Amino acid sequence: MASALPPETLRVTIWNEFIHEQTVDQVRQIYPSGIHAVIAAALEAKFGTEVCVRIATLAEPEHGLTYAVLAETDVLLWWGHAAHDRVEDDIVQRVHERVLQGMGFVALHSAHASKIFRRLMGTSCMLRWREAAEKERVWVIDPGHPIVSGLRDEWFELPNSEMYGEHFDIPAPEELFLVSWFEGGEVFRSGCAWRRGKGRVVYLSPGHETFPIYHNPNMQLLIANAVRYAAPTGGMYLGQGRNIVPSLSPISATHVVDENLHRAK
Amino acid sequence: MASALPPETLRVTIWNEFIHEQTVDQVRQIYPSGIHAVIAAALEAKFGTEVCVRIATLAEPEHGLTYAVLAETDVLLWWGHAAHDRVEDDIVQRVHERVLQGMGFVALHSAHASKIFRRLMGTSCMLRWREAAEKERVWVIDPGHPIVSGLRDEWFELPNSEMYGEHFDIPAPEELFLVSWFEGGEVFRSGCAWRRGKGRVVYLSPGHETFPIYHNPNMQLLIANAVRYAAPTGGMYLGQGRNIVPSLSPISATHVVDENLHRAK
Amino acid sequence: MASALPPETLRVTIWNEFIHEQTVDQVRQIYPSGIHAVIAAALEAKFGTEVCVRIATLAEPEHGLTYAVLAETDVLLWWGHAAHDRVEDDIVQRVHERVLQGMGFVALHSAHASKIFRRLMGTSCMLRWREAAEKERVWVIDPGHPIVSGLRDEWFELPNSEMYGEHFDIPAPEELFLVSWFEGGEVFRSGCAWRRGKGRVVYLSPGHETFPIYHNPNMQLLIANAVRYAAPTGGMYLGQGRNIVPSLSPISATHVVDENLHRAK
Amino acid sequence: MASALPPETLRVTIWNEFIHEQTVDQVRQIYPSGIHAVIAAALEAKFGTEVCVRIATLAEPEHGLTYAVLAETDVLLWWGHAAHDRVEDDIVQRVHERVLQGMGFVALHSAHASKIFRRLMGTSCMLRWREAAEKERVWVIDPGHPIVSGLRDEWFELPNSEMYGEHFDIPAPEELFLVSWFEGGEVFRSGCAWRRGKGRVVYLSPGHETFPIYHNPNMQLLIANAVRYAAPTGGMYLGQGRNIVPSLSPISATHVVDENLHRAK
Repeated sequence: MASALPPETLRVTIWNEFIHEQTVDQVRQIYPSGIHAVIAAALEAKFGTEVCVRIATLAEPEHGLTYAVLAETDVLLWWGHAAHDRVEDDIVQRVHERVLQGMGFVALHSAHASKIFRRLMGTSCMLRWREAAEKERVWVIDPGHPIVSGLRDEWFELPNSEMYGEHFDIPAPEELFLVSWFEGGEVFRSGCAWRRGKGRVVYLSPGHETFPIYHNPNMQLLIANAVRYAAPTGGMYLGQGRNIVPSLSPISATHVVDENLHRAK
Repeated sequence: MASALPPETLRVTIWNEFIHEQTVDQVRQIYPSGIHAVIAAALEAKFGTEVCVRIATLAEPEHGLTYAVLAETDVLLWWGHAAHDRVEDDIVQRVHERVLQGMGFVALHSAHASKIFRRLMGTSCMLRWREAAEKERVWVIDPGHPIVSGLRDEWFELPNSEMYGEHFDIPAPEELFLVSWFEGGEVFRSGCAWRRGKGRVVYLSPGHETFPIYHNPNMQLLIANAVRYAAPTGGMYLGQGRNIVPSLSPISATHVVDENLHRAK
Repeated sequence: MASALPPETLRVTIWNEFIHEQTVDQVRQIYPSGIHAVIAAALEAKFGTEVCVRIATLAEPEHGLTYAVLAETDVLLWWGHAAHDRVEDDIVQRVHERVLQGMGFVALHSAHASKIFRRLMGTSCMLRWREAAEKERVWVIDPGHPIVSGLRDEWFELPNSEMYGEHFDIPAPEELFLVSWFEGGEVFRSGCAWRRGKGRVVYLSPGHETFPIYHNPNMQLLIANAVRYAAPTGGMYLGQGRNIVPSLSPISATHVVDENLHRAK
Repeated sequence: MASALPPETLRVTIWNEFIHEQTVDQVRQIYPSGIHAVIAAALEAKFGTEVCVRIATLAEPEHGLTYAVLAETDVLLWWGHAAHDRVEDDIVQRVHERVLQGMGFVALHSAHASKIFRRLMGTSCMLRWREAAEKERVWVIDPGHPIVSGLRDEWFELPNSEMYGEHFDIPAPEELFLVSWFEGGEVFRSGCAWRRGKGRVVYLSPGHETFPIYHNPNMQLLIANAVRYAAPTGGMYLGQGRNIVPSLSPISATHVVDENLHRAK
């Protein structure tokens, strides 16, 4: 039970579509237990008992994202590619509300085209792409940003990557900390952050399923930093402890009624 | 036919829910021909033959927003309040795509809670409100911004206004040019702008239907400036003339296929 | 010696002009040991042994800001009003370089007109003001921002404040988390943050010397949060531990020579 | 006399250090009349009689930037490289004030290290560089931005360019519209915009003196667009016509006295 966790534990849920790893040999060899397993191990190696990682996948009831799970999640990571359209709209709505209430959200690689990421962004989130196992060089654009903390150089390389290139149809990132260079001639805003409601949203682009990118120590460091960065800071008038909000009742589109006509006197 | 317009004409469509003016006496007295009529007259007084204004309302087929109308619209203004939920989702989708393609969008007052504005923002767009006919003082925060060009002072007052107050759940405005002060003790980010895709989005908050706010010369100036500001600038690789894009085929959620593997040589 | 501190200690230096408290009775009664003493006590009450607070004042040699002091400072707070012009330019230059290297900088109240804040901003930082002991209501604009974490309501009041009003000539804040309402009819962006180089810069406006504003628990909470927020996160390729950079040699205006022509192969 | 110009004329001053063209054969062959002459011709070809171009150089009294010249300048372009330190501080101050009052400022290539650009930015503006006549591919990141309007593709190439690479120590651009890819493996934010006071600031990086980059039609288009973009829009409470402000008296660091205690009644 999460309620038995020490109060400072960072509660992370990794959502993985979990299809390619079960259907494509090349992917299974790289991620035999799923992409989520490699990311979970990396977070546990980094944070130890300070983190409690949960897994959720498309095939589970409610895609593994029940109200109870979301209520106990501080940061949600999302990896999807082949089945964006099979994610139920009401689950998307539920996650969206939870982000606005303060849950961190980290979109990985092809999650750029997921329903939830596009809803948070308000744009098409389309991009240019090419699979050619080419070199990607990831440059740090904002060396003081917490998500790049601990990188040992101003750039690192991924020898075989899927190219994701501009134009990437996102709202201008509120914080742009990585830009990638590709051997084939493209550039890409590969590390971006935004705030939506009380929640923080991070996008990290490297991570194709047919390359062992989530085994790369720099990528693992970036993901761990992104998780810590996206975690809610408590926020205001939200009660004590880590419960961002007491309930998950749907947000109404209508006005908030201002019961206290607190006029200045 | 729009095709007979001089090539530089600014083609504006004002969308009005157009309910209160027909059902509430107080509103009818202020806007006997509809809020849209007052705004249209203000734009025509300001721009003369440089503007071509079209009206669209909720009750019309497709809410007056056919593909043909949108294809000939450079800037769409939106006023709605009582019937946000009656706007069809596929019309919202159509408008959304058109904004991403470059059409300007100006949301007025209670349009903050419209489906289309919330989709563009990715947040709940909720706010605090109170109807007390109180004084609103609108302050210029960015005196070099084109939308405030022509205002004669650093602020202007609306003697009777509906209070819209913070927290306003929007993404941080890319450009914040107005902040309002309310007699009752609140503040509000009352003039904001964002870019979404190739389109510009503006929000102007003053404009309650029971007060003659759209008759105010300063508000008329702000709206005219917002229209000019939000108009597409032609953009890149979009052909000649004012056609933002040749077609309105739906945007796919899938990747853009990059047919030209234009490697640097 | 700071080198004997535990490695996680937050090293804060409070710089105070320290003139009004010694020359004006009204100010001395509120801050008998100086504004800095009240702020230091608040930080120590909040952070306990996790913080090490140092004081520096205008009258000291090098204004108390030697290279050694700055090298051991994670976050510098600045309060000045009557003697901005008496701060030596080479000290300003030294502080500026240190911020670019990663030191946090928190400008308080009339520090808006200090040389160092104006250099970091690149604008005049002028504003509108009035001393009338009027009510200021401070509104939270970004309820998920770490600097407002712990506030119990969406706003708090200061019964007697100096009015600081718009237009405030600053670059658009990268993060705007507070906007103030004033009884006399003005608004003001009273809590703002920017990044400059690897350092974070925060501005908090309430804090006039003739009102006991730094005794206010909400203001003390905001300042403590701002200090934590502005602290360097370690940053990239900067070695281990908390030393942001090994040396404080002046930044040259000339290009960085790129010795490694690290061409992609 | 500028006063005889039609009221809508765009008054542009091109400031060029004008050293390399007179001292280095290779540069003289590419720009026999100076870099400024090529840019001036491009602006005149683009805007015709709508523009009035003036030239100012380092060697002139007051570097050609008298109060009278600045008072009649809507947009100032700046090219400098070898002699940043020889620009007088009081001229820098004068230009800075004028930008805050609304004059547009377009910094070209090595002007990143000029005193005036660094003062406007508040950072070191350092970058990584290499002279290897390598290929630069300039990508459009914001296809709806007015400065890229008219480009026919999403990117264009410069076959021989000086590499300018990240990290570029600038404040996060308020608008980022170009990112460059370099053959040698770097990326660079090559088209950026900020607002400072009432003025707009643009930076365009391609433009090394030993390559004929300002003869490139795409670069000429970008510069022309940048000039139009940076031109003042009239602004608020600034009188009629194109005079941004009536006088050029120095900006004081002290507070603006608020003579009208315009309390809400």
